[in-house]
Parts: sequence; C-alpha cells; structure tokens
Amino acid sequence: MSGRVLVVDDIEANVRLLEARLMAEYFQVLTATNGRDALEICANGQCDIVLLDVMMPEMDGFEVCRRIKADPRSLHLPVVMVTALDQPDDRVAGLNAGADDVLTKPVNDLALVTRVKSLIRLKMLTDELRLRASTGQELNVHDLLVRGSSQEKPSLLVVDDQPHSYERILKYLSAENRITLISDPREALVKAIDGDFDAAIISMSLADLDPLRLCSQLKSLEQTRMLPLLLVSELEQERKVIQALDMGVNDYIRRPVERNELLARVRTQVRRRRFNLLLRDSVQQTIEMAVTDALTGLNNRRYLDSHMPGMFEQARGKGRPLSMLICDIDHFKQVNDSHGHDVGDEVIAEFARRIRKNIRNIDLACRFGGEEFVVAMPDTDMKLARVVAERIRNEVAMHPFVVDHGGKQLAITVSVGIATLETDEDTPEKLLKRADIGLYQAKRAGRNRVIAEAA
Amino acid sequence: MSGRVLVVDDIEANVRLLEARLMAEYFQVLTATNGRDALEICANGQCDIVLLDVMMPEMDGFEVCRRIKADPRSLHLPVVMVTALDQPDDRVAGLNAGADDVLTKPVNDLALVTRVKSLIRLKMLTDELRLRASTGQELNVHDLLVRGSSQEKPSLLVVDDQPHSYERILKYLSAENRITLISDPREALVKAIDGDFDAAIISMSLADLDPLRLCSQLKSLEQTRMLPLLLVSELEQERKVIQALDMGVNDYIRRPVERNELLARVRTQVRRRRFNLLLRDSVQQTIEMAVTDALTGLNNRRYLDSHMPGMFEQARGKGRPLSMLICDIDHFKQVNDSHGHDVGDEVIAEFARRIRKNIRNIDLACRFGGEEFVVAMPDTDMKLARVVAERIRNEVAMHPFVVDHGGKQLAITVSVGIATLETDEDTPEKLLKRADIGLYQAKRAGRNRVIAEAA
Repeated sequence: MSGRVLVVDDIEANVRLLEARLMAEYFQVLTATNGRDALEICANGQCDIVLLDVMMPEMDGFEVCRRIKADPRSLHLPVVMVTALDQPDDRVAGLNAGADDVLTKPVNDLALVTRVKSLIRLKMLTDELRLRASTGQELNVHDLLVRGSSQEKPSLLVVDDQPHSYERILKYLSAENRITLISDPREALVKAIDGDFDAAIISMSLADLDPLRLCSQLKSLEQTRMLPLLLVSELEQERKVIQALDMGVNDYIRRPVERNELLARVRTQVRRRRFNLLLRDSVQQTIEMAVTDALTGLNNRRYLDSHMPGMFEQARGKGRPLSMLICDIDHFKQVNDSHGHDVGDEVIAEFARRIRKNIRNIDLACRFGGEEFVVAMPDTDMKLARVVAERIRNEVAMHPFVVDHGGKQLAITVSVGIATLETDEDTPEKLLKRADIGLYQAKRAGRNRVIAEAA
Repeated sequence: MSGRVLVVDDIEANVRLLEARLMAEYFQVLTATNGRDALEICANGQCDIVLLDVMMPEMDGFEVCRRIKADPRSLHLPVVMVTALDQPDDRVAGLNAGADDVLTKPVNDLALVTRVKSLIRLKMLTDELRLRASTGQELNVHDLLVRGSSQEKPSLLVVDDQPHSYERILKYLSAENRITLISDPREALVKAIDGDFDAAIISMSLADLDPLRLCSQLKSLEQTRMLPLLLVSELEQERKVIQALDMGVNDYIRRPVERNELLARVRTQVRRRRFNLLLRDSVQQTIEMAVTDALTGLNNRRYLDSHMPGMFEQARGKGRPLSMLICDIDHFKQVNDSHGHDVGDEVIAEFARRIRKNIRNIDLACRFGGEEFVVAMPDTDMKLARVVAERIRNEVAMHPFVVDHGGKQLAITVSVGIATLETDEDTPEKLLKRADIGLYQAKRAGRNRVIAEAA
C-alpha cells in the first residue's frame, strides 16, 4: 500500500528515524515539528494518515488529535499516536482524543507498518465516497457528525465462547451499548447479516473455529463488509493480529482487557462506521433525488430517458413485447385555476398513487412533466396494455379525488394513449410519439378514454 | 485482504489444491467444475475474483473469460487464468480473452496469493462507485463500454532511460497508442499529473531512481491515483514485483518483452481505467443533476436549502455580512400567454445569464422556482447588495430580450427584494422571508424596482 504519511514530532531525530522506516516501505512521508503545522497539512488534505507524538511543547499530541477530529476537513484521517511510556493512561487518553491507535516507543517496525497500511487501506475504501459526497452537497459534515453521535445506543455483536472472558467484556460495555452475545461462532455470520450492528467484538481464543476465518467471511460479504471488527487477542498472538489487520480487520485489543481502553476503541469504531453510513446515505439520497419527481415520488423524465434504451434492448433480445402508456389529466388547467396550485398538486399526487396501484413492480412509471405521466411496461402486448390503461382510466373516473384536507371532492378524468413495440425500426422516441398521437386522439374524441395508435 | 475467490477447474484434485492454499490465507473459496456454473456464480455477484483453468471440456477457459467480460453484470470481475504449459501463446490468448493475468502451473504460492490480493484490492476500490452508479441510473453498462472502447487512441506514459529497452516498447505500442516517453524519471510525476494518460509503463531498471518510489508517489497523489501502472521487470526481480503489487501497482510484464503480451496487458489496463472513469463520471453527473436546474444551469432550490445553513454559520463565525436577493420577472405570465412556453423558457434562461454576469463566483445563484431567482452573497452588506440588485435590474430593463431565434425582442423588467443578516436570531428562513416581503413591496410599488426590507 502506498500513501502519504504525516510524521509529527518536535524532536528532529525521531522524525528522521520514522521517516527512514516508512520510506523503506515506499510510503510518501511529510513531516511537521509542531501541532500548528500538522493541523494545516491535515486541513489541506495533503496526507492520508498522521503519526503523532504525544509530548510536544505548546500543543501536545492529544490536543492536535482532538483538533484533527473536530475539523470537518480532516476528521476522516486516521491518527496513530506514539507515546514514550507504556502507560495505559496515555493509551486511553490518546484513544479518547479520537486516535485510531496508540503505539508505544520503541515502536516495533512490523506493528507500525502493518497498522499504517491497514488504516490507509480502510481510508481509501471510503475516499471515493467522500469525494462524491463533497461535490454533490458540500454536505454539512458537521451536521452529519452531530446526527451521527446523537443516535441511539450502539448495537454490538460479541462473539466469544468463554464465560470468564465475555462476562468481563459485557460488564464493561453494557452501560453504553446494546449487546448481542453469540457463543457459537458459526451463528455469528448469520446474526451479523441479519442484525444491524455498529461493530463486532470477536475473541481470538474461540474453542473450535479460527477467528480469522470468521473475520474473512464478514469482510467478504457485501452485507457485512462495512461492519467494523475488533479482535480481542492474547499477548502471544502478534503474527495472527498482523494477518488480521492485513485482511481488513479494523482494530484489536490485548488481554487483559482494560475497561477504558475497550470503551475508547469501541467508540472510535462506532463513530467511524456511523460517519461512513451517513456519507453513503447522503450520496445515495442525492442520486435518488436526481431521478425522482419530488411531488409524486415516481421517477422523472430523465430516468425514463436513460432507461428506455435498455428496456428496448431487452425486449428485442428476448423477442418479448413492450408497451407504453401516456396518461394526461383532463382539463387540469381548470383545476388549477378554480382551486389553486396546492389543490392541483394534490390531484397530481393522488393520480400518481392510482397509477402505481394499477401497475406491476417491473413497470416503469414516471411523471413526464406537468399533468402528464408515462408508464413503460415490459412483457406487455397491446391487448394487455389496453386492459391496464382502462383500469387506470376507470379507477380515476369512478372515484372522486378527495383534496384540500378532505374539504373538497373533485371529479377527475384522464385520457390515455397507447403504443406497443412493433417493427425493428421502432425506437423509444417513435413509440412515445405514437402513444402521444393516441393521447391526442383520445382528447379530441371527448376525453376520458383510451386510444391505441399502431405504427 | 479477504475476498471471495471462485476456483474453476474440471479436475477435482486441482480445485481442492487451490482451495486449500487460498483457505490457508483466509480467502473465501467457491468452486465450479465447468464454465456454465462459473458464469452463473459470476453473474450473481457471488465472487470477487475468478481463478480459471484453461483446459476444460465443453467450454474452455478462454471462452468463459470472454463471456465474463462481455456480461455487464460481471465485466468488472478480475480474472486470473491458470495454464498448464508455459506457452506465450496461451498467455497472450488468455490476456486477449480479457484475463487480468495468466499464471503457469505449477503455480508459485506467493505469486498467486499476491496477485489475488492485489486484484481484489483494486476491485474493492471501485466497488463502492459501482454500487452508487448502479442504483442511480441502473446505467446502461453496455452503453458505457461501447462509449469507452470507441474513444480515441489510448495515451500512454513510458518511463524508461535505456534506449535498447524503450525503443522496443515504443515500437510495439506506437501503432495503437499515443506515447509520451520520459527518460528522466524525476519528470515523470509532473508529466503524469499534467497529462491525462490512460496508463503508465515504468521500467524497473532505471539508472538512478528506485522505480517503486515513483509508483508510490503516483499511487499516493489524488490526481494520479487512478492511473494504471504497468511495470517492466527483469526476471530476478520477483520480490520487488510482489512489493509493487502490494503497493497498488496494477500489472507487470517480464523481459524479454513479448509484443502481443505487452499489447494485451496494456489494453486490459486501458479498458479498466476507462470503465472506471465512466462510472465515476456517471455518478458525478447524476449528483450534479440533482442540484442543478436543467433550463438555466443554475443551482436549484434544493441546493440552496442545503447550503444556506453553512453560509450562515460561516458569516456568523467570522462576523462577516451576508445578503440575499430575490428577483422575479415582472408579468411573466403574460410572456407565456402571448408568446408560448418556449419563449417563456428562453426569457428565463436569458435572465439567468444576466444574473450570472453580474455576480461573483462565491455568490450562490439559484432558480427558486418558476420565474423566481435567489442570490445569496457572502461578505456583502446591504449597501453592496443594493448595488448588485440595481445592476441586475438595470441590465434587464435596459436591454430587450432577443428570443425566438432572433425573431422577437421583448422588453422585460424584474423586481428585486433584498435582506441582510442582522441579528443573532436570524435564520436562512427569516432572511428569505424578509427578502420576499421586499419583493412583494417592489411589485406593489409598480415593479421594475429594488426594495430592501429590514428586520
């Protein structure tokens, strides 16, 4: 893995040492000797990960970390703190400041490189998403974070088959989390797919299943790929931990498990997961808005335009029929003029509901513009299309539209034009044109009727 | 890296052997003993990579590979073919069938695992994008591919300082590619950032730069991260190649370089790159459509709604002014009624152009709906806002609108309401409301004028 590592330490010799080690692994290395410079590099998006010394004059590492994690421009950056003394207090303080990990000097080369690689990899996986999200909405990341943190209690999956171990873990975590305990690791995968967990905590001392097998399954399935995994390891399992990180496992904690360290590590994973989900949802929503009509919830014309060629190709390839309706609300202008635009909107929304009730899921209904709707129906010949069209027309004509909060009933009718795929020369445009001619004739013939137009 | 590997071989013993090796590395392994089953697994999205035997009855590996790469549901899957004999012909045939690599039996464990890991990693990086793209538009992947392949000649960057080596490479590649040769590797990074290359081919025998250093730089920078890198290696550089693949280098070819193998490998990289770019563009376009008004190209109301809180926060945080205009075309209904909707649309589009001419890039102009436009202006107090508003009003009133292909000139005027951020209790809604009251007064006072409303 390549990536840009920012090394922050006030002692030049320490900087050079880390720089040399990382360069040997072909990382790009940037350096800073104080917090202020480090924050600027982070805010400008010049690095992918930060290695941060704790003890620095002016602004110490904890404060730098807190600021990185508080700035919307840098909060997604992984931070590894490096502390001089092996004090669990420092470790917990670092984790509480938002660090993704805290390593102790002298830093073991393999541990450092593995950790850096794994954190950069995890970051790259969401970079693409972040890029999309930021161009679309310049989403108020701050807002996302607030929403993220104010959500309900995190839901955790604990996979552990030894009571003396999981009892301790449950005791530590249960105050601020909802916990599902699985003692049979074979059930864990099923649970993880079904349950909407914020993180899974997996013991590395399972009696009859290699825990890395489970991790690999979880990281491979699309449904569970985003679930953060935190391993609980024995002291002598370093090699296995390195394999696990390489595989995409998010974090680990060594036994004997210390309460505050566990809480801090779990919080970090939950926070990151929720942020990623929000990013993803935000991109997803933006995309859906682009192809949806806001008033009716049906697809819009743009969506129809981009899908018709595919539906055509499929119908042709399989030699199946394909039909299209255009429906238009009769005398809609009068509704608007006599009852106002709000009522007009209600009528349009209600009409959309009635269309939706009368078509199948594979049919594509869209608001074509104003009071005009198009339905494209795969596997549907002219005869069936006419049945559907009559059903929609009837559904509208037979039941008055209740609008204005139940204050008014309006008698509405619609006219419908139909066309069906006929010759090899047919195109989406030609089909639409014919349906439109059908619609025009239906209007001319007195409205509230269905007319099909052949090629 | 974890992931789901599909092993396809008609000989059960071979399947078991590969399965055991891959399971030892914690991959999820699926198996198939014939092409038909393999294609189904691929089409259903059940695997992340395919290891494919060449010699199989009924459908051989080449055909299976071609079909995987021709199916929109599976073309993004990496395929590694495994061939019994070390025949360059088989290798080239596999690459030409679309395989990402061809390995020779007996397969070296390290080479296999490294390759599988690196290809899965590259896939995962675009999976997220593919997911977004497919929900948004169910984009016609077929269509994308056709567009992708029919583009102009690929543009390649060749980094090599030894004439006997690069002359051969240039000779092989120049017929179907445009080539930029860089002999000083230090220039390569700059070139790669500036030029829009489809792939870079980098010699591993550069005289005075470690080529992996360059690869690491290219893979770390946001501008070049997506550029496929293909290394040209000496026979004895296996360890270095493995490091390179681990770092994200996309492919390599061994010396002596064989023409058809080089061409096939380059084609694969170019195809993948172009597909990824199209995916990316497609997601990007969808996102942009969601926040843009189609007629005017200005942002839409949704965009304004999502951005105003941020602009407010910034103005408050820095203690800077912020003002807002609402402009409405006077008697627009008459334009529509007497000249038709098309002319009405022309007037709206032209008005949008005149607004855009008179504001700064940091101002946010949006079509608020119908013939109403809103401009939000950071760092702008009431006095300056009034100047801008008058400029827009004047620009409209002084120059008639040329519409209907130059066939008509219309005298148009607009009314403008202004409001500016005043108290701590102000919200985007309140500001908008005040500007709207200003607009209402401007209309009442006879139109074609600007009126500001204080809190």
